[in-house]
Amino acid sequence: MKKLLLSAAILFGTLSLQAQDSLMMRKIYDEALVNGQGYENLRYLCKKIGPRLSGSPNAQKAVEWGKKLMEDYGFDRVYLQEVMVPHWVRGAKEQGAIIDGNKKISVPICALGMSIATPAAGITANVIEVKSIKEMQDLGESVIKGKIVFFNRPFDPRYIETGQGYGAAGDQRFVGPAEAAKLGAVGAIVRSLSPALDNYPHTGGTLSEPGTKMIPAAAISTMAADKLSGMLRLRKLPLIKFWFKQSCQTLPEVKSYNVIGELTGTDYPKKVITVGGHLDSWDLAEGAHDDGTGIVQSAEALRILKALNYKPKNSVRAVFFMNEENGTRGGLKYAELAAKNKEDHIAAIETDEGGFVPRGFGFDASPEVVAKINKNWKKLFEPYEADRLVKGEGGTDIEPLKETVPNITLISFLPDSQRYFDLHHTAADVFEKVHKRELELGAAAMASLIYLIDQHGLK
Amino acid sequence: MKKLLLSAAILFGTLSLQAQDSLMMRKIYDEALVNGQGYENLRYLCKKIGPRLSGSPNAQKAVEWGKKLMEDYGFDRVYLQEVMVPHWVRGAKEQGAIIDGNKKISVPICALGMSIATPAAGITANVIEVKSIKEMQDLGESVIKGKIVFFNRPFDPRYIETGQGYGAAGDQRFVGPAEAAKLGAVGAIVRSLSPALDNYPHTGGTLSEPGTKMIPAAAISTMAADKLSGMLRLRKLPLIKFWFKQSCQTLPEVKSYNVIGELTGTDYPKKVITVGGHLDSWDLAEGAHDDGTGIVQSAEALRILKALNYKPKNSVRAVFFMNEENGTRGGLKYAELAAKNKEDHIAAIETDEGGFVPRGFGFDASPEVVAKINKNWKKLFEPYEADRLVKGEGGTDIEPLKETVPNITLISFLPDSQRYFDLHHTAADVFEKVHKRELELGAAAMASLIYLIDQHGLK
Repeated sequence: MKKLLLSAAILFGTLSLQAQDSLMMRKIYDEALVNGQGYENLRYLCKKIGPRLSGSPNAQKAVEWGKKLMEDYGFDRVYLQEVMVPHWVRGAKEQGAIIDGNKKISVPICALGMSIATPAAGITANVIEVKSIKEMQDLGESVIKGKIVFFNRPFDPRYIETGQGYGAAGDQRFVGPAEAAKLGAVGAIVRSLSPALDNYPHTGGTLSEPGTKMIPAAAISTMAADKLSGMLRLRKLPLIKFWFKQSCQTLPEVKSYNVIGELTGTDYPKKVITVGGHLDSWDLAEGAHDDGTGIVQSAEALRILKALNYKPKNSVRAVFFMNEENGTRGGLKYAELAAKNKEDHIAAIETDEGGFVPRGFGFDASPEVVAKINKNWKKLFEPYEADRLVKGEGGTDIEPLKETVPNITLISFLPDSQRYFDLHHTAADVFEKVHKRELELGAAAMASLIYLIDQHGLK
Repeated sequence: MKKLLLSAAILFGTLSLQAQDSLMMRKIYDEALVNGQGYENLRYLCKKIGPRLSGSPNAQKAVEWGKKLMEDYGFDRVYLQEVMVPHWVRGAKEQGAIIDGNKKISVPICALGMSIATPAAGITANVIEVKSIKEMQDLGESVIKGKIVFFNRPFDPRYIETGQGYGAAGDQRFVGPAEAAKLGAVGAIVRSLSPALDNYPHTGGTLSEPGTKMIPAAAISTMAADKLSGMLRLRKLPLIKFWFKQSCQTLPEVKSYNVIGELTGTDYPKKVITVGGHLDSWDLAEGAHDDGTGIVQSAEALRILKALNYKPKNSVRAVFFMNEENGTRGGLKYAELAAKNKEDHIAAIETDEGGFVPRGFGFDASPEVVAKINKNWKKLFEPYEADRLVKGEGGTDIEPLKETVPNITLISFLPDSQRYFDLHHTAADVFEKVHKRELELGAAAMASLIYLIDQHGLK
């Protein structure tokens, strides 16, 4: 009988805790959907500030805007972390063309981030199309030398999560040009990393390490890549050349900042739960989904908790990281200072996969911890359709924390992935592509997860 | 020992069956994502045919296109089911304005489907704003008589699935005008059923039964509704009037058709699994998400199965229902003929909630059956992020089957709901709002479910 009573008490205790969590989550979602401010904040960031590549005047404006936003929200602490960042500039709009005998067919290209310029007149050379770095290496220096290498392995549409397609095609952009340089290529053209067939070239970083030989490298739109490939198939090799011209350069490093807002923990102020995205964006567009949405959702998550008068036991921080796109200097600095200041980090959530409708979260944790999270919280997220709580990874900005603070759990917010790589790093990544409710649901999911971690921990 | 062996055999048998299903689903998804034809079919339906309200010449063109499409795919049987449909026409573009003393402020409106026209000069009257039919009834005939009733209860943003928000606000459009007519109102203006704040008026059917008193009824955009409401709050009642003019009318009924394509069952040709959407659309736009996507996905589901050389044991049908939007005549006819032809229907899947990224399916079945479906199939749909297999309802077109054929299970395809009611029944529901991969993932989810039902049944 005694045992039975005890079981009942545990049972009711559990129910009551779950009911309390469920009630709090409903309040969080209501606040996000009825009083959400993320969408208007994003409008400002995209339309009034716009592109904000590290080191640019716009990046500095974004820092000032972010600090003021979180000060106006009355978070307990708002501060900057100074960090030196690379300063790469694109220069004049790039030009590219397929040269077919006397015909010159213009195609949309853009320099890859951190690439070098071509000579002022551009580069003209024969084109070698390859589907992989290995194929290029098998052809060897005798074939590659003096040529423009055209990396044209398409984004595989069969991956359900497009991030996997990006990963599978990505080596062509990340290291393809550097590997081509080793074999004496004079330039590299990379098929845009996108499942969409259109005329947007997608920029993005390419390997640039001090002492490495570099060649001018550009992205070409997927439609133009198909066209070039078709022409190469039909014509004899010497007839088809490619010409491109770009004037990008790397300037001296610039002082910049991470922007941090904190709700200081009532019980454990030195224990930290971080939620963040990156404030910098590529220079071609407004950086709406990449990663304006992550910025405004991070601030919104804290705003919601504060609006509900929730006092976290642990410190909760929104971090606007600087320089994710071409250096990760902000992420490295945050991790360095976390160790230096002897902070005890419980978890860090990164939101950098777009502001689309939430699917759930990925946890860089053991299968046992992921199973426990599912057992305890999956039911809570089910009514909000954000209940994919799966084994996953963190994100570029929070990854360095793993090296500097022990026992942290890295978490990635998982929005639906279908539309992201259509826009990623292109001129199409604008405010109008973000949906108000989807953005708000994401902020609510993050605020909910922060609340649950703050209340119950992760392990 | 014998028992143990038996268990092992069952275990391995089960595993092998699941592995076989898993393999088949992977093939279905690959076919959809690599060779999908739905997107280009939808482009044709939206751009070459366009709006196709029942009874219109475009609806007839859509019938001919749909029949030819499925004939070209070489389905075993392609045929039409004749059905008489209402023929309502909008006439000249509607005009609406808030009259504030001498000022006339034009606002976006459109006639509700099946509404009657105003007199040629329009109607001008004082406005009574209400948030519910009950509020109007409580005010009573003395207040309502001679007025234009303005139904202005907003779409509640707190519902996570927007379909629930639509349901909660919908009575204002469905029966509000008819109820206002009973109290002597001279017209009705209904806030558009949308969570988005914009300037699109949303049409949609309003109650029109023979013998019922009707008054002219129009939808007003959400932004204009807020404006009108604000002005009513600020000014004294007699100063604010509303004027609107519309010339819609109901013409004699027209002969039209359901379009049906079938892969005939090898073992049970008289047992049917139906997948369908509606071919008609409202007249304001291209009917892309409502319900062009449902049409092309239904055909695509069968095309995929045929391309994989899958021979269903039961007959599988793609049905393009006619007249979902203002009469359900096609759905009624299909159900009537199913009974008359003594068909034995296993299941019917309706796709009429947009062509957005799949979330899963809703089953109009007992909790036990839904639990069994989850136990057997949830794991199979998980890798495709379409594993919300929940208790649900069928859909307007398939609902009549419940009355005429015993033991059928109705199923609704559940795409993500966030964006649907922004576009629903407006000029913004165009091809460009549909995402190729999202559409293809939906077709693959449907083909997979059909395959599983064909192999294993539902109960």
